[in-house]
Amino acid sequence: MTNASAETKNDAPKRQRERIYKTAARLFAENSYGAVGVAELCAATGFGKGALYYHIGSKEELLFEVMTRYMVDLVEEGRRAAAEDATPAERISTLSRKLVRSVFDHLPEMTVCFRELNSLGPQNRAVVSKLHLDYQRIWEAALADGVAAGVFRPISSVELKGLLGMYFYSFLWIKPKGPQGPDAIADRYAEIVLRAVAPS
Amino acid sequence: MTNASAETKNDAPKRQRERIYKTAARLFAENSYGAVGVAELCAATGFGKGALYYHIGSKEELLFEVMTRYMVDLVEEGRRAAAEDATPAERISTLSRKLVRSVFDHLPEMTVCFRELNSLGPQNRAVVSKLHLDYQRIWEAALADGVAAGVFRPISSVELKGLLGMYFYSFLWIKPKGPQGPDAIADRYAEIVLRAVAPS
Repeated sequence: MTNASAETKNDAPKRQRERIYKTAARLFAENSYGAVGVAELCAATGFGKGALYYHIGSKEELLFEVMTRYMVDLVEEGRRAAAEDATPAERISTLSRKLVRSVFDHLPEMTVCFRELNSLGPQNRAVVSKLHLDYQRIWEAALADGVAAGVFRPISSVELKGLLGMYFYSFLWIKPKGPQGPDAIADRYAEIVLRAVAPS
Repeated sequence: MTNASAETKNDAPKRQRERIYKTAARLFAENSYGAVGVAELCAATGFGKGALYYHIGSKEELLFEVMTRYMVDLVEEGRRAAAEDATPAERISTLSRKLVRSVFDHLPEMTVCFRELNSLGPQNRAVVSKLHLDYQRIWEAALADGVAAGVFRPISSVELKGLLGMYFYSFLWIKPKGPQGPDAIADRYAEIVLRAVAPS
């Protein structure tokens, strides 16, 4: 068995889980976590109850995955962006594009994340909060580098939370097929951030 | 009967409704609209079922009131601010303070508003959307006046939505007894808005 075929073989469960997550995110967003039963998840994904539990563990585990996967990706992408050779303004631009693209790609996940935080147990909820804090730290580091380089003014945590809120709130009004694509919106928002941190 | 005593008499039902709204907002925010029954509302407000229905009409009507009252106030305050004699920058500052104060005063209402929009029927939901649009129009008018006066650059609707998102998203992290009061936060956010619209 070659590595390639081993990868293909291991990819099948991953793709199946992916399909379950996407379907669950859509169902939870359209209705609510509490209103969607395992039977409905089985019907929508085409899995039997046993196979579904094999893939997801439990319904709360599924909710947790829906709420965390896009944040894990954002944190990983943000850390990769931090390692790239770029000016502070270019890093803000990159973070901005990755964040708005993530909003475009994860509208149901974000809807669920903001609505169902209380449906998670305290341990899982703490992980979600930690991920959001880790993500905020990536922006803080990018802004701090700009301050160190003398090209940004320092801003407070409240101001950064506001600027990130500008992005995260957008899941409420972004239409994936709307007139403006993610990069166009991201570039406008990066400009707002850069104006906010421009030395006075 | 003097006018004063007539007012006092008419104020009693108003105060009682006010107490019901505040209690319902807290209960709906702590749990969820669906999980809070009329019996629980009666226990928490001290009203019997008949008296409660007399004051609120129906449970959905109560949810609708919780979700719209702070927005109605914001729109009214915003329209009053527009009528005041002030520079465009002062109007942004005033709108900013009124909005952040409203977030501080209505954390449960905003939690409910963002979580339970789908629990409203289509007509009530349309009213909520209309209120948010009316409120956005107030900021648009303030910004347009600044553009007309040559002190602001024009920004797109997507940029304004982002700036308003900065404010509305803050209900998720604002702590009413936190180190910074509403006006301090509002003044930082007004500065971000003014930097965003400063002529380039």
